[in-house]
Amino acid sequence: MKKKYLFTPGPTPIPSEALLAMAQPIDYHRSEDAVALIKDVLEKLKHVFQTENDVLFLTSSGTGAMDGAVSNLLSQGDTVLVIRSGKFGERWSEICTAYGVNIIPIDVEWGNSVDPEKVDHQLKSNPSIKAVYSTLCETSTGALHDIQSLAHITQSTSTLLVVDAVSALGADDLQMDKWGVDVVVSCSQKGLMTPPGLAFVGLNSRAWDAVEQSNLPKYYFDFRKAHKSGLEGSVPYTPAITLLNALQCALNRIYEEGIQNNIARHQQMALATRSAIKAIGLPLFASSPANTLTSIRLPKEIDGKAFVKMMREEYGITYAGGQGELSGKIVRIAHLGWMDENDVIVAISSFERGMAEIGYDIAYGAGVAAAQQVFTTQDSQ
Amino acid sequence: MKKKYLFTPGPTPIPSEALLAMAQPIDYHRSEDAVALIKDVLEKLKHVFQTENDVLFLTSSGTGAMDGAVSNLLSQGDTVLVIRSGKFGERWSEICTAYGVNIIPIDVEWGNSVDPEKVDHQLKSNPSIKAVYSTLCETSTGALHDIQSLAHITQSTSTLLVVDAVSALGADDLQMDKWGVDVVVSCSQKGLMTPPGLAFVGLNSRAWDAVEQSNLPKYYFDFRKAHKSGLEGSVPYTPAITLLNALQCALNRIYEEGIQNNIARHQQMALATRSAIKAIGLPLFASSPANTLTSIRLPKEIDGKAFVKMMREEYGITYAGGQGELSGKIVRIAHLGWMDENDVIVAISSFERGMAEIGYDIAYGAGVAAAQQVFTTQDSQ
Repeated sequence: MKKKYLFTPGPTPIPSEALLAMAQPIDYHRSEDAVALIKDVLEKLKHVFQTENDVLFLTSSGTGAMDGAVSNLLSQGDTVLVIRSGKFGERWSEICTAYGVNIIPIDVEWGNSVDPEKVDHQLKSNPSIKAVYSTLCETSTGALHDIQSLAHITQSTSTLLVVDAVSALGADDLQMDKWGVDVVVSCSQKGLMTPPGLAFVGLNSRAWDAVEQSNLPKYYFDFRKAHKSGLEGSVPYTPAITLLNALQCALNRIYEEGIQNNIARHQQMALATRSAIKAIGLPLFASSPANTLTSIRLPKEIDGKAFVKMMREEYGITYAGGQGELSGKIVRIAHLGWMDENDVIVAISSFERGMAEIGYDIAYGAGVAAAQQVFTTQDSQ
Repeated sequence: MKKKYLFTPGPTPIPSEALLAMAQPIDYHRSEDAVALIKDVLEKLKHVFQTENDVLFLTSSGTGAMDGAVSNLLSQGDTVLVIRSGKFGERWSEICTAYGVNIIPIDVEWGNSVDPEKVDHQLKSNPSIKAVYSTLCETSTGALHDIQSLAHITQSTSTLLVVDAVSALGADDLQMDKWGVDVVVSCSQKGLMTPPGLAFVGLNSRAWDAVEQSNLPKYYFDFRKAHKSGLEGSVPYTPAITLLNALQCALNRIYEEGIQNNIARHQQMALATRSAIKAIGLPLFASSPANTLTSIRLPKEIDGKAFVKMMREEYGITYAGGQGELSGKIVRIAHLGWMDENDVIVAISSFERGMAEIGYDIAYGAGVAAAQQVFTTQDSQ
């Protein structure tokens, strides 16, 4: 009898009431109950997005919403700036390229965050740049970009700021309206504690103006149709209704905790994890780490892929390994969504035991003690 | 205490083991278990598609796969033939138009099925037509198109036949390989007894050749990526894993029953329903009705929208009303997916009671008796 723990940056654990909501007999998606469900979910998403703008939803994974955030905002021949500091920044440029959009990349060493001055410089040199595409947390490295500063730059120009907040929404702060972020994209299976299959997009009026002018082809991901239907609690196409039921349960939790408290909880879990990793004696991979997940650079002699495999098979603990060029070199531990202090303790304790098992010289409990210290200090504040 | 019955042509009822599968703690979509799950599901889908070709899946509703069946197969400037006999035929032409593809429509009166000779004539006049887009069952009318005859025509040409089998797969026969259908599109929430959120596409080698030549933009719905990943039990993007778990349970049922037996069961339910409606004295709407659902033309004095609303609120019975120009004029009763003879009896009996309540002169039990007769005759064969 071994309990399983999921510490990947998506999917994340689902609260029991959300799991059970999906096991209810299915209902027609155009019933009055479904209309009320859709309206309620879209209203509560605004709280999570920290916006008064409407949020729309799509039945797809987060990449579907990213696809739509290119095809709905841009036109053929447009030029955009893409911040590439990992796999998901690269995805923005792949999507733009697929649609024939010109990209100016700002390549940032993996693990680092973009220097906002470089973005400012590019926009001043190329005022015709239509949009800046960035990530909030680059999930492949665990690095957080300074979206507030980027929005400060784009706000005074005609350039849109489009943010992939797929993994970080609810964990790292993103004040869409207050900061002036034009488009925010996210999905269900990360901070929103719901299984994968739903994606969300918030757009402000500047973004909707761009949508009206866009001439790239789109049908299923047409934001105008999703937006218009959503206002009436409806959908252009059959939605993933069981996932909407789960989402409603999960959003109720965030709504009751309050988005800022929700983010503060994530910040505390991230602080504790980083403190533990430092106490264990390993370097963090990201220079400005996100609340969403912690990336740990492994000693060169350790095979990260084998470590992740062993942890899953022997300990029932699923961490994420490195992607792309980081394969085998880092371990990523998410503290995301339906998690609390004791989940972090389990993640750290298991990490210590696993590292000891593969021969790393480790003092049992050093990381756990550091995490306990953070939680105790925070709790007594 | 009132039980609810869902007789809409999607979503359809979900078997309990599939509901409970979704309530299990979520797992990582790149785990060994997930790889085995994806491989198993894709293998069993081939049985349902009656093909030896690979089937790929997408996290979206069926319309997402239709979108992909345009953007992956065609190029700018291509001309296609679209059979429009209802809302879903029209959707094909809307998608083609969104992508700048030229369409030659074959408009068929709603309720009727296309005359294959008209398709043959068009292809002979315009041999450069790249593809014919059709539906198997036009869900908005309940009419079945003769896909076998259409495939017989396209097979000897270089024109592809692309079939929207969204609602009818598993209920109406579609022998992809034997008939020579090039592309079949379907989704989870109809005959496949799974909640909405997954879509499927089967393509033969002629279709893959077209994919290689296509220059329309696509990213999320890129069939090549989904296909290549699927062969390894993987995915390009996080899939709706809870829905895959449910799908596996549902596919096991079809696999055990066998696809032809599954279709025969639907045929029997459809025969019984049509026989019942005739006994009640109402006309069927479709000239060649599908096994998927039965559309009933209501007497002019009856407000179909009010009838459907009353049935849901007072009887807990959800039928579908008419869409578009048929709004208020027809009622659609699906006998689709996880249903058996007694579900049909409930659908008919409730229809009789509802019609009596709104003042239609009806002999209680006439429709039920006709359905019983069909089932008894069939069972004793």
